[in-house]
Amino acid sequence: MFFKEFSGFLLLTGYASASCLHGTSHLLRRATPDGGVEVSKFGYTELEGPLHWAGLSTDNSACAIGTRQSPINMDSSIHTVAEAPQICIPSVESAEFENLGSTVEVIVNGTATFDGTNYSLKQFHFHTPSEHRIDEEYFPLEMHMVHEATAPDNSSRIAVVSALFQLTADGSTTDLITNVTKNLAEIATPGTVTETGPLDFTSLSAQLTTTPLLQYTGSLTTPPCAEGVMFLVTQKPLPLNVATFNAIKSVVKFNSRFTQNELGEPNLLVVAANKLKNVTASSNGTAS
Amino acid sequence: MFFKEFSGFLLLTGYASASCLHGTSHLLRRATPDGGVEVSKFGYTELEGPLHWAGLSTDNSACAIGTRQSPINMDSSIHTVAEAPQICIPSVESAEFENLGSTVEVIVNGTATFDGTNYSLKQFHFHTPSEHRIDEEYFPLEMHMVHEATAPDNSSRIAVVSALFQLTADGSTTDLITNVTKNLAEIATPGTVTETGPLDFTSLSAQLTTTPLLQYTGSLTTPPCAEGVMFLVTQKPLPLNVATFNAIKSVVKFNSRFTQNELGEPNLLVVAANKLKNVTASSNGTAS
Repeated sequence: MFFKEFSGFLLLTGYASASCLHGTSHLLRRATPDGGVEVSKFGYTELEGPLHWAGLSTDNSACAIGTRQSPINMDSSIHTVAEAPQICIPSVESAEFENLGSTVEVIVNGTATFDGTNYSLKQFHFHTPSEHRIDEEYFPLEMHMVHEATAPDNSSRIAVVSALFQLTADGSTTDLITNVTKNLAEIATPGTVTETGPLDFTSLSAQLTTTPLLQYTGSLTTPPCAEGVMFLVTQKPLPLNVATFNAIKSVVKFNSRFTQNELGEPNLLVVAANKLKNVTASSNGTAS
Repeated sequence: MFFKEFSGFLLLTGYASASCLHGTSHLLRRATPDGGVEVSKFGYTELEGPLHWAGLSTDNSACAIGTRQSPINMDSSIHTVAEAPQICIPSVESAEFENLGSTVEVIVNGTATFDGTNYSLKQFHFHTPSEHRIDEEYFPLEMHMVHEATAPDNSSRIAVVSALFQLTADGSTTDLITNVTKNLAEIATPGTVTETGPLDFTSLSAQLTTTPLLQYTGSLTTPPCAEGVMFLVTQKPLPLNVATFNAIKSVVKFNSRFTQNELGEPNLLVVAANKLKNVTASSNGTAS
């Protein structure tokens, strides 16, 4: 394990110094003509929530019947990567920071090379509480860095590098998240957009390429819950202070899909529906 | 609102000084002959999780078909109580502190008088993250104080006084929770039991009778999900420090049932099952 982590760090160092740490850019994208962003058509409560996503659109059927769905509880059956990804995210003076209703999201450029494939970073966003669990335990915050690559057959591959966070009693934190959320109060309303503070990814990239990453192939954790998505999840959480956490939670509210069944096992909604037939047969229930 | 809260405080003061604040007791109860406690037969992951509770036992049908289930998102349709409860929990030198697998629980005596009914406090336990949300936002910890009363027809009435907690950046906390969890490390394994530190409920009782409490009638949030349970939930969270939160989370892991449908609306599992029929009809899914 030590050798693998160490070699990953060497790869990062060489790669980053060649192309990552020089210069800054200023990326700005507006999704709607009025300067706002489109609000997600799904949510996390009642009839808009995760139990009902397949009912919101026929495009979302995988949410209800997919058998390799995310998030999952990661136990000893999930292994860490043998070779760390090469991650390169140029520093920016600021980046677009959007409230999509379903999450808050930052638009940035970057690359990740893993297992021979070159992925492009499209955005990162937050879930609170965490979607993934490790040995049943959850974490207060999870950051999903969403990457895309084009496969040889021209199809799209998605890889999500996921950082879990743990709150610290001494107030230590991950400065990147402090700077991301500098103007969070300006996007308290879904559909609004602002800018982050200056973002320097050097420290985060180093952490993500030297810490063990748990790897598995699951799905998008939001509609349409498409499968074939590779996850690389930090086995050890990164530090986060309470002020930043409370600020994110006050805007995001709650956006964590329930933990799915073991990979390859029937979708929990299918299991529940089949059991419900027995319940209603013996209880005169309301299912029809 | 001010008058109601104030009168509630007066009631508490008179009641507590008469019967609550004098003397201590030492309550000890062992549930199994070997000195341990019985571990719950349900969990929060995969096939033991909340989507499947009705499948674990025929006694749990309400979990899948009940239409007034807890927890809920509490929006403006949920009102605060007109008159505060009278709460009396004698101080104890220590109390039994159990790890049931599904939660950690403290066995204490006490009383709560509300709306003309005298309830007996049986135990309190914790959920992390919170089960209830307020205007969609969740909280890191929720404490359920479970009370029982005997109705005129000899049936049992259950009332849960629920305290929500918010993490503090300055480390301020609710001392009672610090003392409850003093020996938490000794019950890291489900089925084990230890003792709390000295518990003084004076401050908590005062808070619960002077802060607005949101009231509604729902269900047990664990199997068998029986309905007719009255909830009184703090509208403003109590303070909690990170060290105590992380310690509780490391033992409890995750034990929060997913938010249920609006009171009186069909159970979300019934809605999901009915929608699944459409999904499988158009997708050749695996539901049978």
